[in-house]
Order: sequence, then C-alpha cells, then structure tokens
Amino acid sequence: MPFIHIQEVIARDGFQSEKIFVPTDEKVQLINELSQCGLSKIEVSSFVSPKAVPNLCDAEEVVTSIERNPNITYVALAPNVQGANRAIKAKIDEINLVMSASATHNRKNVNRTNEDSLQGFQEIMEWVKGTGIKVNGSVATSFGCPFEGKVSEDDVQRFIDYYLAMGMDSITLADTTGMANPVQVKRLVKKVVEQIGEVPLTLHFHNTRGMGLANVVAAMEAGATRFDASLGGIGGCPFAPGATGNICTEDLVHMLTEMGIKTGVDLDKLIVLSKELSNLLKRDDIPGQIVKAGKVTDLHPA
Amino acid sequence: MPFIHIQEVIARDGFQSEKIFVPTDEKVQLINELSQCGLSKIEVSSFVSPKAVPNLCDAEEVVTSIERNPNITYVALAPNVQGANRAIKAKIDEINLVMSASATHNRKNVNRTNEDSLQGFQEIMEWVKGTGIKVNGSVATSFGCPFEGKVSEDDVQRFIDYYLAMGMDSITLADTTGMANPVQVKRLVKKVVEQIGEVPLTLHFHNTRGMGLANVVAAMEAGATRFDASLGGIGGCPFAPGATGNICTEDLVHMLTEMGIKTGVDLDKLIVLSKELSNLLKRDDIPGQIVKAGKVTDLHPA
Repeated sequence: MPFIHIQEVIARDGFQSEKIFVPTDEKVQLINELSQCGLSKIEVSSFVSPKAVPNLCDAEEVVTSIERNPNITYVALAPNVQGANRAIKAKIDEINLVMSASATHNRKNVNRTNEDSLQGFQEIMEWVKGTGIKVNGSVATSFGCPFEGKVSEDDVQRFIDYYLAMGMDSITLADTTGMANPVQVKRLVKKVVEQIGEVPLTLHFHNTRGMGLANVVAAMEAGATRFDASLGGIGGCPFAPGATGNICTEDLVHMLTEMGIKTGVDLDKLIVLSKELSNLLKRDDIPGQIVKAGKVTDLHPA
Repeated sequence: MPFIHIQEVIARDGFQSEKIFVPTDEKVQLINELSQCGLSKIEVSSFVSPKAVPNLCDAEEVVTSIERNPNITYVALAPNVQGANRAIKAKIDEINLVMSASATHNRKNVNRTNEDSLQGFQEIMEWVKGTGIKVNGSVATSFGCPFEGKVSEDDVQRFIDYYLAMGMDSITLADTTGMANPVQVKRLVKKVVEQIGEVPLTLHFHNTRGMGLANVVAAMEAGATRFDASLGGIGGCPFAPGATGNICTEDLVHMLTEMGIKTGVDLDKLIVLSKELSNLLKRDDIPGQIVKAGKVTDLHPA
C-alpha cells in the first residue's frame, strides 16, 4: 500500500458552518498545533465574502499569522477573482478553486453558472502566474447533488479537463453533501486516475450518511492516495441542506493505521487536539468516534 | 453482486444495554413491525439471567407473543444450558450460542473458560436434537479483544471447527467491541469462507470506531452475504467497556441500495420505525445517520 496523504480542512470546511465565531488567535493556535502532526496539507481559511461566511472573515489575519511548517502546503479556498487576489496578497501556498459539477448547486453555492465559474478561474490563473502559488481545482458535488440528484461522470471529467488545460496543479473530487457510495467511488476514481495520470488527486468525503470511511477504502482501491478530513469530523457546507460532518481526521488516520497503511500522522497528537474541540466550539456533539471509544490499541484492565 | 441478508438485532443487542427497560408490549410491537420489512432474521431476545441483563428479563413473553412471519428466522441468544432450555421451551426458530475467542472476554462476559463454554454447547446440542430448532455459533471478539488486544485467527478458526463438529447450522464472526478494520476483515473472512464452505456465515459488526460500513464492504468482497445490524445503530455489549453502537440497519441498507445490491428490505419502512426510537428509548442521541440526513435520493427544492 502506498503512503496516504492526510489533508486537514477543519479551519475552512469545519469552521465555516459552525454556529459560533472561533476567535482568530484560537484558529491560529489550532493550525499551529496541527502543523506539528505530520499532515500533508492544511486548508486554513476561505477568501470569501465575510457576508457569505462570517466565520471566515479573518482569512488574511489567519494566513499571515500562522507559523508555516515547510513540509506542509497551506491552502485557502477562493470562490472568485477577488478572493484569489486576497489569497495571493496574503502569500498562501495554494489556492483551492471550487466549482460544483451540478449547475444548480454551483448557482446556490457561488451564485454563478459553470461557464462563469470557469471564466473566473481562467482569469485567476493569469493573476497567479509567476507568483509561485499553486492552484488546486475542486469539482464539488462530484458524486451527487442535493438538488439535482445524479451528476454526470462525463461532466465531472470534462470539468477536470478544463482545469488541467488552464494549468491547475492538482484536482479534488468532492462529495460535498455525503452522497457517494463505495461502488460509485471506485468507478469514478478509477476513471479520473486514468484521466489525470501523475497529477495529484484528492478525495474530499463527508460522512453525512455513514459511508465516509467505506468510500475512503474504495477510493484507495482505485488508486487515490490523498484525502481531505476534518478534526473531530466537524464541517459541512452551509449551502447544502442536511449536510453534516466531513470525515473525521483522527478516525481516518486510526483506520489507516489499523490497516497497516502509513500516513506520517501523529494520531495521539490529533486526538489531544480533537478533545479540545468541545471547548473551542462550545458544543458537546463532536462527531468523531475515536475520541469517545479510544483507539483499538487502548486496552482495558481485565 | 449476490443478495445480501440483513439480520436485525435491536431487540437483543440493542435493548440489552439501554438505560431504560423497554416494556414487553412495545418490544413485541416493534418486532412485529420489523417482521414486515423484508429482513432475513430477527434476534428477538436473550435467555440470559435477568440479574445479568434485566432489560431482557421478558424473553419468554417476547418470544411467545410475537407474530412470526414464515419468511423470517427468529433467533434468541442463549449463554448456557439453562438459557437454551428456556429457548427450546419457548419454541424459538434458532438459538444463538456465543463464546468469545478471547479467554479474558469470555470470562468477563459469561464467567467461564472457553473449555467450559464449549462443553456447555455440546450439552445444548444434545437438548436441541430432534426439536427442529437451528443453532448458530457466534465467535465473539473475533477481530480483537478490549482486554487482550489481538486475537489469534487460528483460535477463531479452531473454535469454528468445534462448532461445526458439534453440528451447529451456521456461524457468526462478531466484532463485539468494534475493533475490526477492513484489511483484517477481508483476510479473516476469506479464510473462514474457505473453511466453512456452504455453511451460512454472518458478520456482526459494531461501528464503535467508525469502521462499521467499511468493514461490511470488505467482508462482502471476501464473500460474506449475511450481516447483523441494529435499527438506529442502537446497541453495544454491557461487558465491553467503551463500546457503542452496532452498525445501523437503515444506514447499512441505504448504502447497499445505493451500491446497487439487493437486500429485499423495505428501507422506507425501516426509517419510519427508526424515527420512533427516540420516543421508545427516551433519548435523542440515536446514532443512525440516514434518519438525520435523509436518503441520497431525497432531493431538496432548488
């Protein structure tokens, strides 16, 4: 089994949909602590309108305040040219551009057509040129849309072709509202791995319907080696009704460790950080299971 | 993909560890409603000491009061000869005999050595002879013990050989406290399928550490076609510290349906029953996800 890269998204996908605002210094502190855990990427914020996502209004301050570990790629999401320019100015390592494969979801999420999104991305690629900043292209709702239902795999692959033609460095297939199942994941990931070859591919799963870790295993069997996950399983998309919970980083790392797969992640450190989330987010319904049940290797006295 | 048999255990593995006593008539009503859902087996109670498991003190009344659907096998657990004789008297369809592969867990769970358990089973097989009642042999902690840690796969297979030599009709591998991972599941299930051939094999998974549905997919890939699950994901073992939640029946059926696999189960009926669990059990933390998130096919108005 190859090395699996774990990419942490709590500070973006997690915090954006929380009821309370996480103070900037607490965000920075958590990201700094996550930077000591052996993760491959950390998505730290989103350069989105503060009106649309008030919780991430401090993207600049977060990006410029964190201590960067040179082994980690720090990512920020940008939905449009304005956001990308803010991200460039803040000297982020990588910009994550997100468009939904479903036209309806894209309209609800970023209020534009797929054509307009792609045209905006083209402009952003011009701005990014020469900055040394990488660009990841995410296809949201790749496995289903909460409004339209089934999403055409041909459309997903067509959008990836557009992304690559524009010169994006890597691709993410996102199951934005947790609709993917293992059979579908294996089929689409196989196709996309064949399509994009050596270009890094990330799978972004939500555990909305309990299938998150099953989808990870299916994706690995199809050749995927990079996964987004959120500490404690915090997260969801504020525009996608019914969605709850990205897959949980420590539950993912725990499963992979038990499967004998290397991730380079310090699971115990993650668990310590996850245990603080209840306090940080002022809620006691953190979805992660390992924090509640303990690791398989945590034995009980007989 | 072959037909997958879904076996419901809420009335036994679920109720046994609930804080409140579920009134007998409500148990009977739920089992009668479950009998209309297309399930293959329903485990309805445990003929265990009422002191050990007060919640299941009404095993006789439950077994003799339910309306039996001839397409369903009704099962009751029996930990010893006394329990088995009560089950025989109540004319259950099948007795489930449970011994842990781990000596420590067996001692903590049924207060006897593996040798004593096996000797008791041998006696039970004599009592059952000629009654027409089937016997299923469960190997608990097949994938790990919360006290001892790793469990020898050779021991698991050795116990299965004992079971088959005694004339038991079917076998269950139980991940009693949710310690199994997909790699391990695929490996052990492959071995056991080869070992027992046409003898029906059930996999009993818990979702304690989030790996439940991933383990189901791994087991199916290794040839398993029968799965225990609990409505709402209710359940756990009162003797296994830290354990929470069998895999959730409606989440399992939903995943299999999305994967294009036939189960014969009416998912919508299950969801209706699961929605009543909050009331029945007087708690609002039912683990099942489909009841909260809706099915993948439940679309939202744009």
